[in-house]
Amino acid sequence: MTTDIEIAQQAKIRPILEIAEKVGLTEADLELYGKYKAKIDMTKIHELAAQPDGKLILVTSINPTPAGEGKSTITIGLADALNRIGKKTVIALREPSLGPVMGIKGGATGGGYAQVLPMEDINLHFTGDMHAITTANNALAALLDNHLHQGNELNIDPRRIIWKRVVDLNDRALRHVIVGLGGPIQGVPREDGFDITVASEIMAILCLATDIDNLKERLGKIVVGYTYQKEPVTVADLQIEGALALLLKDAIKPNLVQTIEGTPAFVHGGPFANIAHGCNSIMASKLALKLGDYAVTEAGFGADLGGEKFLDIKVPHLKKAPDAVVVVATIRALKMHGGVKKDQLGLENVSAVTAGFANLKRHVENMQAYGLPVVVAINEFVTDTEAEFQQLETLCHQLGVTVKRAAVWANGGAGGLDLAEAVVAACETKEANYQRLYQDEATIAAKVTTIVQKIYGGKTVVFEKKALNQMKTFANLGWDRLPICMAKTQYSFSDDPTAIGAPVDFTVSIREFVPKLGAGFLVALTGDVMTMPGLPKKPAALKMDVDDQGNALGLF
Amino acid sequence: MTTDIEIAQQAKIRPILEIAEKVGLTEADLELYGKYKAKIDMTKIHELAAQPDGKLILVTSINPTPAGEGKSTITIGLADALNRIGKKTVIALREPSLGPVMGIKGGATGGGYAQVLPMEDINLHFTGDMHAITTANNALAALLDNHLHQGNELNIDPRRIIWKRVVDLNDRALRHVIVGLGGPIQGVPREDGFDITVASEIMAILCLATDIDNLKERLGKIVVGYTYQKEPVTVADLQIEGALALLLKDAIKPNLVQTIEGTPAFVHGGPFANIAHGCNSIMASKLALKLGDYAVTEAGFGADLGGEKFLDIKVPHLKKAPDAVVVVATIRALKMHGGVKKDQLGLENVSAVTAGFANLKRHVENMQAYGLPVVVAINEFVTDTEAEFQQLETLCHQLGVTVKRAAVWANGGAGGLDLAEAVVAACETKEANYQRLYQDEATIAAKVTTIVQKIYGGKTVVFEKKALNQMKTFANLGWDRLPICMAKTQYSFSDDPTAIGAPVDFTVSIREFVPKLGAGFLVALTGDVMTMPGLPKKPAALKMDVDDQGNALGLF
Repeated sequence: MTTDIEIAQQAKIRPILEIAEKVGLTEADLELYGKYKAKIDMTKIHELAAQPDGKLILVTSINPTPAGEGKSTITIGLADALNRIGKKTVIALREPSLGPVMGIKGGATGGGYAQVLPMEDINLHFTGDMHAITTANNALAALLDNHLHQGNELNIDPRRIIWKRVVDLNDRALRHVIVGLGGPIQGVPREDGFDITVASEIMAILCLATDIDNLKERLGKIVVGYTYQKEPVTVADLQIEGALALLLKDAIKPNLVQTIEGTPAFVHGGPFANIAHGCNSIMASKLALKLGDYAVTEAGFGADLGGEKFLDIKVPHLKKAPDAVVVVATIRALKMHGGVKKDQLGLENVSAVTAGFANLKRHVENMQAYGLPVVVAINEFVTDTEAEFQQLETLCHQLGVTVKRAAVWANGGAGGLDLAEAVVAACETKEANYQRLYQDEATIAAKVTTIVQKIYGGKTVVFEKKALNQMKTFANLGWDRLPICMAKTQYSFSDDPTAIGAPVDFTVSIREFVPKLGAGFLVALTGDVMTMPGLPKKPAALKMDVDDQGNALGLF
Repeated sequence: MTTDIEIAQQAKIRPILEIAEKVGLTEADLELYGKYKAKIDMTKIHELAAQPDGKLILVTSINPTPAGEGKSTITIGLADALNRIGKKTVIALREPSLGPVMGIKGGATGGGYAQVLPMEDINLHFTGDMHAITTANNALAALLDNHLHQGNELNIDPRRIIWKRVVDLNDRALRHVIVGLGGPIQGVPREDGFDITVASEIMAILCLATDIDNLKERLGKIVVGYTYQKEPVTVADLQIEGALALLLKDAIKPNLVQTIEGTPAFVHGGPFANIAHGCNSIMASKLALKLGDYAVTEAGFGADLGGEKFLDIKVPHLKKAPDAVVVVATIRALKMHGGVKKDQLGLENVSAVTAGFANLKRHVENMQAYGLPVVVAINEFVTDTEAEFQQLETLCHQLGVTVKRAAVWANGGAGGLDLAEAVVAACETKEANYQRLYQDEATIAAKVTTIVQKIYGGKTVVFEKKALNQMKTFANLGWDRLPICMAKTQYSFSDDPTAIGAPVDFTVSIREFVPKLGAGFLVALTGDVMTMPGLPKKPAALKMDVDDQGNALGLF
């Protein structure tokens, strides 16, 4: 079988200027990074702001399983298909993190004939955005520890610093560390920890900022810790928001690449949806909306995570709600949610499809509850049977939702024409009446409870002692009016990764909140979720290599 | 007064393709990073290998002082001047580290009208080489700690791991840390530490590698620690040299930029000369030699550090010795070496020039001892007096060395014509008979002692207990045949930063060796030298900013 990297390397990649010209961009609007990648010039971004928005399609999915769903693959294939049926379409995706690439996941650029190119570059250092974010995050940490060391004029309590360092790698040994050891000239000893870069507040800020001034303002609002009097200390107090913004001056500009079929794709910003807000940048989404009649974008993991955060956190800043939502599933994944083990997925099992449909159903109903038209997309696998799909179709019809098969992995845009027609029909015949799930004015507890009950289908929320105390403190500080960014396992509606399908009557535990004033939300940590992943016993890195001409090998 | 960044931003920068064409490179040979930066395609690099080398000019200096010397400024101005007198000249410089840029030093791209452009980009993330090196270094650390966590098949002793993590920042709080805390699922607790990226062995390897295969071979040889039986464990044992090389596949390609006057400049690789080998990459130097009739390059800090390492570590791999060496000084810096305080440097002081000349004299004699023609370059300051320069001229004539003033800061290449003529004369009329300082076959103790006595002018070397034990162990392992990379303060010939001028009769202490088998040398740590710098009380970052169009402010 041909692998993704082989398909990508055999694909005919076009100079990025050719792709840009399809949507009216000229050479002067581009800052080239090699022949096939470009950032968009800031002047052009400002200029396009006056253009009307196209239609916005949000691609989300069921809870992921080891069987695979292919949300990026569908996003890319759907956009290729929309272009094939005459709708000028532009993609907005997140950029991959090296952590999962080197760890277990491999690439994050779609699959088969629905990929963005050049996949090796996008999966490795790309245009350096991740590294700029890592550097800005760690420069802040170094300047903060230096402030402690040089006399601590702001009276910061080293025990109450909440700003962590980051690396764009899976590195469990850095989760809990002690820094500043070695004596008086080596800094001030304290407990610290590293997150993965995608969980950095600076990543969230970059993705939510509307321009450089807004970026700088948000950076200034970051709370890094508290004084001995428990007053919050911000980046503005340290007077370094200018330096941090300077480090991000290029990273903030969206990156243009192409699909195998030549559809323009902005790949920019990459927060994970389980431990962060899971959406690509506002600036990239805006560009896609300004340049395309249709903009297709995705949000991370299932609709309970990326989908909910897209609608409750990103949309108010984007000032544009989706015109339709595509919920991606596979027959195989539904069967896993229905109780089938991974090694049995090759066998037809209609009743397992019926059982697993409960997971899809809840996600579809959730998206409909936001007032949005929904289309279900089934990413085809060779093992799917006609009986299984017909059963799914029956169940979807009972639910009143359109379902379409898409063979974009095997056939690119040509495999997604039915899906594209259904999405266009949803946009043109159904009215989107976007309603947010909660109002910012609600209490923290009420907002969390609303998400747990209305989106997850849970019964109650238990706030652990630390979280309870924080809710009081945050209310006193006026931070209780911020939206909530849930940090939760992606595998289940609940906070227990083994509770697949559509669990009911469960309790979600909130152990701690992390205030992200620059991003403008409070992260709620549920269950055992970790903001720094680990590596598996046999990491993907073991298979990676490069030949003497610089060609990547073993990326998948 | 116009600042460096103002001069740089007002300069007329040319499309990099225009610069490339001056030395016969075409668009196909370039990988553009924006309009003004490019990496050179690997195919072209292989193709050029068959070309003859031009003349090689090494620019080095006296021991640096707070008065400033301007080695990069002279390197750039000299190359501009050589082009003005009809010699096709190409520059090879190191790329700056963000640590000093955000800390105390500011930019590292020359000064006044002798700068490389675009200075903001080069001083910030440039083409991402530093970040690729940081990532490869830390991926190795994560994979190593993961190996411990996942059963430790190689039987690595966590107490004997010598591979450190890095950040490209000054961050003293990371010098000594404990990682792996938090219980059984968070890795294996152990002592660890972070160096600055420029001190990473991977930086040294990137700079000494001749191609990707050689890079991979060197990466495989890195010793990361020892087993419980004290056997060395390498990257090849972990089977990840392919993944690390893949992360470096673009970083290994030299970066082409331009001077204000349009001279092509390769800016690539950036090890510090006090804690690493201090030279830009072999691949960049080779390109400069293949494309220019003259290649002008620099080595970090004084001739005791960068100069010695260029000649004893880099030349054997470059397979080309300098045709002439330029030793840079300023009248102000000589007066500081002669005992004048910084606030008194504006006053004429001929006798202090005479006293401080001892520092310059020793460096000149050292370079001559390698069999190389030497020219002294005085980087002019407005406070220099005619009497001071005449005294210096007299002293240089007594030493039998040509001395030229260069006003390249104020006038660019036009201010360096005399210097350029003198350098050409040295190359064309004097014969270089390069002789290395020591032979690899000498013992470790003998090599270190030779450097201390012949280059530093010291009397004896004291090897502390750990260093003594290591010399025995390393001899048993066959590592004693490697050259020595001294880690020593840049401010003095000795290991005491306050002993300026030309100290005699001093002792140098070696506290520890760090084996760098991939780079192919042993680092000898002297005195209190640290491989992770700290930030000052008022870091340069406090003045940095960016406007809403993305223009950098406060970089200097």
